[in-house]
Amino acid sequence: MDMNDLILISVDDHVIEPPNLFDKHLPAKYRDVAPRLVTDEKGADTWVYDGQVIPNFGLNAVVGRPPEEYGMEPTAYSQIRRGTFDVAKRVEDMNADGVLASICFPTFPHFAGNRLIASSDKQAALAIVQAYNDWHIDEWCAAAPGRFIPLAILPLWDVQACVAELKRVAAKGCRTVTFPDNPAAVGLPSIHLGYWDPLWQAAVEERIVISSHIGSGNQAPHSSMDSPIDAWIVTMPMAISGAAADWLFSPVFKKFPDLRLSLAEGGIGWIPYLLERADFVYKHHHAWTNADFGELLPSELFKRNVLTCFIDDQFGLHSTDFLNMDMVAWECDYPHSDCVWPNSPETVWGAIKHLPNEMIDKTTHLNAMREFRFDPFAILGRENCTVGALRAQARHVNVTPVPGMGGHNPSNRHGNPVTSGEVVKLFA
Amino acid sequence: MDMNDLILISVDDHVIEPPNLFDKHLPAKYRDVAPRLVTDEKGADTWVYDGQVIPNFGLNAVVGRPPEEYGMEPTAYSQIRRGTFDVAKRVEDMNADGVLASICFPTFPHFAGNRLIASSDKQAALAIVQAYNDWHIDEWCAAAPGRFIPLAILPLWDVQACVAELKRVAAKGCRTVTFPDNPAAVGLPSIHLGYWDPLWQAAVEERIVISSHIGSGNQAPHSSMDSPIDAWIVTMPMAISGAAADWLFSPVFKKFPDLRLSLAEGGIGWIPYLLERADFVYKHHHAWTNADFGELLPSELFKRNVLTCFIDDQFGLHSTDFLNMDMVAWECDYPHSDCVWPNSPETVWGAIKHLPNEMIDKTTHLNAMREFRFDPFAILGRENCTVGALRAQARHVNVTPVPGMGGHNPSNRHGNPVTSGEVVKLFA
Repeated sequence: MDMNDLILISVDDHVIEPPNLFDKHLPAKYRDVAPRLVTDEKGADTWVYDGQVIPNFGLNAVVGRPPEEYGMEPTAYSQIRRGTFDVAKRVEDMNADGVLASICFPTFPHFAGNRLIASSDKQAALAIVQAYNDWHIDEWCAAAPGRFIPLAILPLWDVQACVAELKRVAAKGCRTVTFPDNPAAVGLPSIHLGYWDPLWQAAVEERIVISSHIGSGNQAPHSSMDSPIDAWIVTMPMAISGAAADWLFSPVFKKFPDLRLSLAEGGIGWIPYLLERADFVYKHHHAWTNADFGELLPSELFKRNVLTCFIDDQFGLHSTDFLNMDMVAWECDYPHSDCVWPNSPETVWGAIKHLPNEMIDKTTHLNAMREFRFDPFAILGRENCTVGALRAQARHVNVTPVPGMGGHNPSNRHGNPVTSGEVVKLFA
Repeated sequence: MDMNDLILISVDDHVIEPPNLFDKHLPAKYRDVAPRLVTDEKGADTWVYDGQVIPNFGLNAVVGRPPEEYGMEPTAYSQIRRGTFDVAKRVEDMNADGVLASICFPTFPHFAGNRLIASSDKQAALAIVQAYNDWHIDEWCAAAPGRFIPLAILPLWDVQACVAELKRVAAKGCRTVTFPDNPAAVGLPSIHLGYWDPLWQAAVEERIVISSHIGSGNQAPHSSMDSPIDAWIVTMPMAISGAAADWLFSPVFKKFPDLRLSLAEGGIGWIPYLLERADFVYKHHHAWTNADFGELLPSELFKRNVLTCFIDDQFGLHSTDFLNMDMVAWECDYPHSDCVWPNSPETVWGAIKHLPNEMIDKTTHLNAMREFRFDPFAILGRENCTVGALRAQARHVNVTPVPGMGGHNPSNRHGNPVTSGEVVKLFA
């Protein structure tokens, strides 16, 4: 086995929604209240919805720029790589990166569709959710069979509506729904009270994975307004550990042992520590906290129910004895600033090549194929799914970083360390 | 080498301050404004200072209870083990646990003395800080030479006063000062602006280690009021990763390469992930964030400047290739609920016995002796410092858990999972 034999399925990527997102799928009566794209006086393309002006895609769409031109500044479609919002170009970019298939989280609705929760017109908001999902499944994913695992957003303000939408999209071939890692952090009922049980029940029945992306509920705290933004970026993946512990000690996995939760962009190298710590706390404290895992340890429950993933996690991939390698997947994170496009194969191969072939295949694609019930080989033929085969189709794709795409944000121009405060203020 | 040959120096324990704390060392003119102990109508012993009623020691003093009687309830001195506040009994408890020496963080002033920051009378507050430190050094630590590494609190509201107090206590034999892991989180200037540089300079000159305890600045967020408290407890140590990243990307260690920071109670198993992530972020993002580590990588800076420690961290101790084992120390955490007193030797031996003897000795005591310039062997003789030798002196110490010490808090009595919300409300 060598790098070109890898088969890469990414369980965490992102789509920048195209301007025509709602053109086909939203009933005419809701057109006036639908999110609409506005180009402001500075040239920024911004979604406006129900009184919200939704901040630009910033660091979320820097792929293909030279690193010195990363930053908060991509604000117009003209400044971002076309593969971020054009599915034909996306497939070319996937081919160039040797990536077979991808789960694409939303951008302007936020990772879990949180921006629709407070909608003043809930009927319209439901229609918007459905139109979004129809666009995602029928246009984005359907454009390239075998290349995308469909992910839907939910009408999070109403659990029964969530159940109905989950069933509707499941019938259309959807395989996962995005849900806040901690719903209580966005004003919704917590996972502890049973409110969401009908949703978990439906997910189990329909075999739909719950995908929770970092930053979709709990936020990574930054230490001060003066702190270099690097410090914040460092802690963002691992900050999902708070939500991971919350799910682990919730009743959810005990009541729904077949439910699957995918923690997107969290990394894996810290998981063994968390699980050891969870077992220690359980054994040491349960007599007074009344925690009860029955026959299991917390670590065993986690390993059974939670899918984790990594971009580049050499330490995690040296710690496989402490992980359930049947529940570890790979992610690309295109087009966010942490992705290593177009060098994903080189990066992951460097981190994984010491492992047995069988474990490499599980981690790079087989675990994702099983958990998301996704069989691209049946559609495309396995021999056409490897890094080598995909890249052979992409020789015409220009992957050279494109400088000078322009922008308005001076944060990366002054030579001093960029602080988290500058970024917080940008979005204030 | 076997368990009885271990020599255990703990870099993180706690003292519950005795009622007579301020009797000897506070000038008479400040007696009226000094913190005073009040027994409330429910029998709780509470420190009252400058308008603050300081919450009880709760989970911080449960050592020696049966686990089902842990909880938030120890509120009176009569309900807590005498070794928490009586130094002669503390030494007996250390002997029974085979612990040679200890760094004791404050309790009622909070881990870094934060409760004094907002004092309305800063002159009185400075006198209180000095009296506290004189009590700690001249009474608590001096009661048992070779058994305690002195740690001082600082007048955090004024960096020049901090420098003066650091120099004063250094001259009295102090080896470390406690400082918030993130001063910005408690309303003080951040570590990024140079404000604290005179303190770092003085610490380097006097070879004083900065000790930052979890929860002394940044707090571990809990996910919801309904969340089981276990989930919160699980994440508390690792939550210092936010502060660790903040220090790492600050100018502090670049300006003061000889400064030493000890992260108390943070654990070690997640450190390799954090450092790999820091290096990735640096390489991947520095072109736009303007981060600059010169000839070093962030991981190299961390390994040079930061002392980490563990209570029981089997995964961390299987990951020694990814840590700087010259900068890992052990901690007991007596009398907090996470400590495994009186079974520390059994616990640490189980986690560490697979390592080479030389590495075991570094981790259990030699690193702490070097970093804190502390030589108990010169005072006590090495042969008297082992687990076996200390326990031989403690055959009369009753370590059987004492049930029925009483209390008022029903949180652990109702049979349902204790939630973080119950605890938050207790302290609201």
